[in-house]
Amino acid sequence: MDDIRFAVLGTGGIGRRTLEVSQHKDGLTAVAACDRNGVAVDHDGLDVGELLEATEGNIASGPDEASDSTPATPTDDYASDGGAAAVEGGGVKQHGDEAGIVASSQGEPTETPIDDIIAESDTIDAVLLALPNLEHDFIPRVAERFAEADYEGVLIDVLKRSRVIGMLDDREDLLKESGITFVCGAGATPGFLTGAAALAAQSFVEVEEVEIWWGVGLKSGYEDNRGTVREDIAHLDGYDIEQAREMSEEEIEALIDDHDGVLEFHDMEHADDVLLERAGICDAEDVHVGGVLDVRSDEKPTTTTVSVTGTTFDGETGTNTFELDDATSMEANVNGPALGYLKAGVRNNRAGHYGVFGPADLMPGF
Amino acid sequence: MDDIRFAVLGTGGIGRRTLEVSQHKDGLTAVAACDRNGVAVDHDGLDVGELLEATEGNIASGPDEASDSTPATPTDDYASDGGAAAVEGGGVKQHGDEAGIVASSQGEPTETPIDDIIAESDTIDAVLLALPNLEHDFIPRVAERFAEADYEGVLIDVLKRSRVIGMLDDREDLLKESGITFVCGAGATPGFLTGAAALAAQSFVEVEEVEIWWGVGLKSGYEDNRGTVREDIAHLDGYDIEQAREMSEEEIEALIDDHDGVLEFHDMEHADDVLLERAGICDAEDVHVGGVLDVRSDEKPTTTTVSVTGTTFDGETGTNTFELDDATSMEANVNGPALGYLKAGVRNNRAGHYGVFGPADLMPGF
Repeated sequence: MDDIRFAVLGTGGIGRRTLEVSQHKDGLTAVAACDRNGVAVDHDGLDVGELLEATEGNIASGPDEASDSTPATPTDDYASDGGAAAVEGGGVKQHGDEAGIVASSQGEPTETPIDDIIAESDTIDAVLLALPNLEHDFIPRVAERFAEADYEGVLIDVLKRSRVIGMLDDREDLLKESGITFVCGAGATPGFLTGAAALAAQSFVEVEEVEIWWGVGLKSGYEDNRGTVREDIAHLDGYDIEQAREMSEEEIEALIDDHDGVLEFHDMEHADDVLLERAGICDAEDVHVGGVLDVRSDEKPTTTTVSVTGTTFDGETGTNTFELDDATSMEANVNGPALGYLKAGVRNNRAGHYGVFGPADLMPGF
Repeated sequence: MDDIRFAVLGTGGIGRRTLEVSQHKDGLTAVAACDRNGVAVDHDGLDVGELLEATEGNIASGPDEASDSTPATPTDDYASDGGAAAVEGGGVKQHGDEAGIVASSQGEPTETPIDDIIAESDTIDAVLLALPNLEHDFIPRVAERFAEADYEGVLIDVLKRSRVIGMLDDREDLLKESGITFVCGAGATPGFLTGAAALAAQSFVEVEEVEIWWGVGLKSGYEDNRGTVREDIAHLDGYDIEQAREMSEEEIEALIDDHDGVLEFHDMEHADDVLLERAGICDAEDVHVGGVLDVRSDEKPTTTTVSVTGTTFDGETGTNTFELDDATSMEANVNGPALGYLKAGVRNNRAGHYGVFGPADLMPGF
């Protein structure tokens, strides 16, 4: 496949790490990036090293801390690497006019960063939307803007909110007309893990259950991911989103103390179910997502595992499993797959496959 | 994706099971099949049930025994589901003129089964080559015949011989000119397991090692897989292919007795290494394949596992793993993935991607 020229909207944790990881991948050239105050465009390829270095100090808590490098807990309300904190500023956290991408020698200030990227998009094959999506329809509305400008290429997000997928589906005609291949939920979960589920399902002619179980250690990232933790609380037994939103900081701290810092989640609302159903792997109701968040340790409290149980053509029942090593950070598990799915998206786009695709749709025709 | 119309060359174990499993998959219509004596073609879709039932009794050892349903041990010299016994006759084992596919009401006798399928191939999207490949270049030569007839579509095999891939590569220009997408090694191994390795590698920016470890229980299939067992012996410490070929049946039995029926293999020659390297996952020399064959039990003596060890972008080293349940038969693990890769092949073919592809090449752009 020819070289892929891609852009990143948002240079928060996800955007920055995508730029970083892309340097390790063949055939990927970063040509544009933006945050809320600026854009950097070089069609011959950005100097990613300079860009990351120049903007690094602008991140409030530094690269080793939460907003940049610590995974959020999975939640249906935030990006899957995730956490509001990581993307809240629409990119690098700001410290004055010169902060963010304009601190790079490649950065130019602008009032209209997204429009500026759209204006350059003729020669851009793929755009990673690493933007905050605090309003549910923000990402879908950005996609609309690209479609209205007749962008032909890939848009990709790492969100995990089921409802965003529906909103993208609502706009599918517009995306198709423009020639856009939208890959949604392409991070660790649903992306990586639903891809694994689609693969593991290949032993079976009938899949009975998919269980996705994650572990996240969030000690050093806790302060910057309070918003995410609050959202996760909505998934605890006896809580809902409304209750979680109304809790005071003190109430949340008390709750966490009650649980000794370890929160366990079952039957989370997660796009994995919708995405596996649309890929024809199993019924959405047979997909279960849960996990354990430890806010007092950076060690994962449990091993991230995908278990797929099904029946073979010869009548046996079995469970295939996919396990991620505890040493692999959630960031590593977001950005590698995201770039892989981005490549797959481009392959599909060049083949004229437009519309909305989940990660499992991009697996080998399963 | 539109419906896929496919043909199967060879109605031995692999061919028959592919037809059977395809009935469980959406969007796949079997329109042609052949064995050495006959062809069955119906562009509206074969009656697969009738075909399988009518030909079932023609299999020497019956459907519950080795030639049809028991996996061969992995070896670089046989098909990956494999075993000479399953495919030796070029399809169903023959018992007289009326045996094999002509026993089906859909079958017609012919002297030129492959040419007959080629003559019908204009409306066939994909052809599974479930033929014996006792001569190394037989499958490549069949591919040549399709190319010479200007076939435009997918050819797919489930072999695992590294050297066959080289022979296909040698013919790549011819395949491309014709418009053929050749997917090689798309069974359990290398197919399923290298796909899993390509996925598991996504946490890492550098893969250090891929270990593929298989278990096969072959008690009820032993008699019909003696040839395969002999080939496997070539992989034992202290043996090579020449020695294994020259051993008498008694010597082999004595060797098996010495090992109490359980043979363990390390560093096997297997196409997995070549296929992972060409997909850009790791160097071929970092791929290790081995396993355990138990000829006195149908239980798997060890769990089939893929372990991928690598380094993440943030400098951690870890091992992701993919495990197949012991209850899943090798047949289940061949035919599901084979049909998945067949679908992926068609998607690529329709997009104008011609040439030779390994399974891992069809994963999402990793």
